Amino acid sequence: MRIARFSLDGNVAYGIVEGDASTEGGPVLDVIKGIPYGDFERSGTRIPLSQVRLLPPTLPNKIVGIGRNYAEHAAELGHDVPDIPVAFFKPSTSVIGPGDPVVLPAFSEEVHHEAELAVVIGRMCREVPRERVKDVILGYTCANDVTARDVQRREKQWARAKGFDTSCPLGPWVETDLDPSDLGIMCTVNGEQRQLGRTGEMVRSIEDLIVHITEAMTLLPGDVVLTGTPAGVGPLAVGDEVAVTIEGIGTLTNKVIKRG
Amino acid sequence: MRIARFSLDGNVAYGIVEGDASTEGGPVLDVIKGIPYGDFERSGTRIPLSQVRLLPPTLPNKIVGIGRNYAEHAAELGHDVPDIPVAFFKPSTSVIGPGDPVVLPAFSEEVHHEAELAVVIGRMCREVPRERVKDVILGYTCANDVTARDVQRREKQWARAKGFDTSCPLGPWVETDLDPSDLGIMCTVNGEQRQLGRTGEMVRSIEDLIVHITEAMTLLPGDVVLTGTPAGVGPLAVGDEVAVTIEGIGTLTNKVIKRG
Repeated sequence: MRIARFSLDGNVAYGIVEGDASTEGGPVLDVIKGIPYGDFERSGTRIPLSQVRLLPPTLPNKIVGIGRNYAEHAAELGHDVPDIPVAFFKPSTSVIGPGDPVVLPAFSEEVHHEAELAVVIGRMCREVPRERVKDVILGYTCANDVTARDVQRREKQWARAKGFDTSCPLGPWVETDLDPSDLGIMCTVNGEQRQLGRTGEMVRSIEDLIVHITEAMTLLPGDVVLTGTPAGVGPLAVGDEVAVTIEGIGTLTNKVIKRG
Repeated sequence: MRIARFSLDGNVAYGIVEGDASTEGGPVLDVIKGIPYGDFERSGTRIPLSQVRLLPPTLPNKIVGIGRNYAEHAAELGHDVPDIPVAFFKPSTSVIGPGDPVVLPAFSEEVHHEAELAVVIGRMCREVPRERVKDVILGYTCANDVTARDVQRREKQWARAKGFDTSCPLGPWVETDLDPSDLGIMCTVNGEQRQLGRTGEMVRSIEDLIVHITEAMTLLPGDVVLTGTPAGVGPLAVGDEVAVTIEGIGTLTNKVIKRG
């Protein structure tokens, strides 16, 4: 099931995406009553996907990122794979949705794309045992862990480098029925391939990461865990269109603009 | 004005603290209608402070901490004062209120107290010019930036070391009428003085820190900026009572317990 969050005529709701580009009349949204955490009902209202504006598919309270979780990417930045996962936060204020602009911050000269599989948490949880991890996951979406690389090198903690406004595009929807263990993941800039990998190359599995994070802290419904980026990160420039595609989910596209 | 958040008989509200221990009958809470961001009215209901349970005085969406902002403390951990402020996040799930227990996490053997002046943001803001910083501040409270020191040494990013549940005691209330530029700040453990400093010893002023943070990201009403800790940090053990006192604000006290 693909759960999107959208706005139409000033109203915000969640809906289930049915059909795709090959469907006659295009895909539609089957609007759900309330929120997709726990049991929910369909309202019976169906809206063509083309008529709505897609929003970030989740409203995370926090985003926990994991650095250097693909060996080739760690190597391209001159690092070894760490003994312990490198966990960091991106704040809720960094989140944007599909089609929203990534705004290059004034304090950086070198902003990079990082295509990542995002795990969306479905229920409040802490100290999750390995075998229960699947029970706390609502589904998966595409993320771009946009990073001010020069700031990341200069500042020991990554709050500004990875936490600036618009640095966390998420979308286009949450796919709930998906085996995330070996999916193709790609990033293109202006249609040109920059990153290509498979989630099967992750150093630590999703289970390992969620055990590691929830050993320390509570995750809330809607929270997001970013699982690291494959090799091929590189700069974004004003006017670029950056797209993250993950097999079985879809494509998250954002334009890059300058702060006006 | 001292604005507290409290619960009584299952209801949660904000109130203005009037009087102190020397007042006949003790201090009372003048309950306010709604929330203390923007204009608000007093409801006319007055409740003795002794009858309520104080809650964290703000519900931050995010907490931005600043490392090594007192030279003596940087030195005691073997560090120089950084050229650029070290900004990091603590998540909303780390917040507890006055009297709530600090729960030592299972993954650390060395949890330290860090007494800090906390700035509570009063309005949504970004790219705040230096001379407007005072306009975005609601007031000040006491914080304990509880830190798993061994984890902080082991893990390059501090998400788990400083982000675990109960690692951010805040309170007892927000003082809105206060010049924060040179206040005494103290931490005691079981009544014994451990940290003693003055906010005037900060390497970067509150103005500098808020300019630095909002250059990158939006702060929301209720968000918290922690301003760093003076020298004297040290370990907490099960059964300890840790208290942070800041001149002109009050005392934030928490017991230390083991995860049950």
